Amino acid sequence: MHAPGDVRVEDREDPRIIEPTNAIIRLTATCICGSDLWPYRGVEPVDHTLMGHEYVGVVEEIGADVKTLKPGDFVVGSFVISDNTCEICQAGFQSKCVHAEFVHAGIGTQAEKARIPHADGTLVATPGQPDDDLIPSLLAASDVLGTGWFAADAAQAGPGKTVAVVGDGAVGLMAILAAKQLGAERIIAMSRHPERQELARFYGATDIVTERGDEGVAKIRQLTGGLGAHSVVEAVGTQESFMQAVGATRGGGHLGYVGVNHDVQIPGTQLFFAGIHALGGPAPVRRYLPDLVQLIWDRKIDPGKVFDLTLPLERAAEGYQAMDQRTAIKVLLTV
Amino acid sequence: MHAPGDVRVEDREDPRIIEPTNAIIRLTATCICGSDLWPYRGVEPVDHTLMGHEYVGVVEEIGADVKTLKPGDFVVGSFVISDNTCEICQAGFQSKCVHAEFVHAGIGTQAEKARIPHADGTLVATPGQPDDDLIPSLLAASDVLGTGWFAADAAQAGPGKTVAVVGDGAVGLMAILAAKQLGAERIIAMSRHPERQELARFYGATDIVTERGDEGVAKIRQLTGGLGAHSVVEAVGTQESFMQAVGATRGGGHLGYVGVNHDVQIPGTQLFFAGIHALGGPAPVRRYLPDLVQLIWDRKIDPGKVFDLTLPLERAAEGYQAMDQRTAIKVLLTV
Repeated sequence: MHAPGDVRVEDREDPRIIEPTNAIIRLTATCICGSDLWPYRGVEPVDHTLMGHEYVGVVEEIGADVKTLKPGDFVVGSFVISDNTCEICQAGFQSKCVHAEFVHAGIGTQAEKARIPHADGTLVATPGQPDDDLIPSLLAASDVLGTGWFAADAAQAGPGKTVAVVGDGAVGLMAILAAKQLGAERIIAMSRHPERQELARFYGATDIVTERGDEGVAKIRQLTGGLGAHSVVEAVGTQESFMQAVGATRGGGHLGYVGVNHDVQIPGTQLFFAGIHALGGPAPVRRYLPDLVQLIWDRKIDPGKVFDLTLPLERAAEGYQAMDQRTAIKVLLTV
Repeated sequence: MHAPGDVRVEDREDPRIIEPTNAIIRLTATCICGSDLWPYRGVEPVDHTLMGHEYVGVVEEIGADVKTLKPGDFVVGSFVISDNTCEICQAGFQSKCVHAEFVHAGIGTQAEKARIPHADGTLVATPGQPDDDLIPSLLAASDVLGTGWFAADAAQAGPGKTVAVVGDGAVGLMAILAAKQLGAERIIAMSRHPERQELARFYGATDIVTERGDEGVAKIRQLTGGLGAHSVVEAVGTQESFMQAVGATRGGGHLGYVGVNHDVQIPGTQLFFAGIHALGGPAPVRRYLPDLVQLIWDRKIDPGKVFDLTLPLERAAEGYQAMDQRTAIKVLLTV
């Protein structure tokens, strides 16, 4: 991305192994993330920046210390590099690994090849070479599914619980899928877009709420006997959506927030008197990847449906445009 | 409190049973809370307001629906009224009960007698009439001990954990006591007052950090191998202390915040990228009361030491002054 709104596909030097823990992968597919729109729209700084942090592909070469992968393996990777061995990783928070590094900052997987640091701790090999129709779902696991799953888990979605999901983008939809898999009794999607409502229902939403802000909160309270939802997922990242999520959570309930905050200021008093659990941030996708890959492999979940536009990598600029204008939920780029 | 800084002890009409779930108690002791200083200092509005929300005493009269208490029982009550039967209470969040009501708003236990709504759900009877020396500890359970315990529990203090406590007031000290009881391996008290440091050590602090703000965070990180504490308690409620607590928590760690926020604005981005669990608000003291009363009864904990000034109720104004000027940590008022 040369500048906001200016995406170009250009030739770069091939990546090479630098550290013995590195792997070089040849991308099979990659995609455009909602968070890529922040620099595209000029909200985050961008200047000839490599883009992309979601990826599946085939291992081409490994460094001397890579033990769990071999050339030819098909792999899915997390959008945050992790060693998966440090104390923080062992506690399940690989996105805060002592070696954490965002793939979008300096690697960039909207590309033909990429060098992945700490390959053992970041990549997960699939049981074999996947059928073509599994590629979108495996790619979704790299970020949106992993992030939505973390959000639903952070919100403690589970049996007997009412889960409200703020945000009908790809991550919100994946949180619905996750809440359903985790056994939630009732899943309320907050959405005002007919196609997204339909997909929300496909993934397991039992109720749709179109109201936003204070009205949205009032509606959730009304649907939950005045108490609020047990579990709320925030998957947008604006002031309004965050406070809507706080307000929709019952006292003692759980909020999982994964929308990347921009200019959000949380009024301390409001959060205090809400009396809720909150857990959020960049999702530790690596924690969930082995299980998610298996669920996809066994065709128990179909997260790939979240991609509603597929383009070749060369036409990435069109993909950005479609997502920016919300004519596509999520764009898959074939390599 | 007639106005900020103007505390008077005056005759009022005796409280009477209004609802069949009420009890009238004769106070044995009450005290002044750090949060009473907010109106005293003019930060919160105050105008001829009844004060006090911490209390122990003897039941004088009960309404027709009160089942678990009888006249003559010695009781400890929570600073928030709760029915202890609704869905929120059953989940352990009695401070968000559907019948929640702050004792300081309209009841006021800096008094000889008080009417307690939802007596069964709010009060806990001790196993018998307590010895005099147990009164301060039982009184502490009503708020500061219960609140400190909730904070330590919310921060998931426990075996193998390093706990950092921001705030050396009564609640911070009680959080140290709780962390120790919960089995924490290391307890870091953030304090720059020699007498409070001493009390912190008495209650179980293993380390003292005198630095504040970013320097305090750096010190905690240095003491924890660069990672931050597993568990952090925030027991102050200012912008600096809250962000200090966020910064001191390791990725995936737990923050328990109980300092009543005033004018705190939490930068969403900073909270997001911290990647931490947070739970806070007015403590559901009622959840912990039965266990805390038993621990005190069995003389396993000695929270009463937190009171370093005892005055008769008539001299309440002096007590406010002492706490305002920080010449006393916490003032007990005998009735």
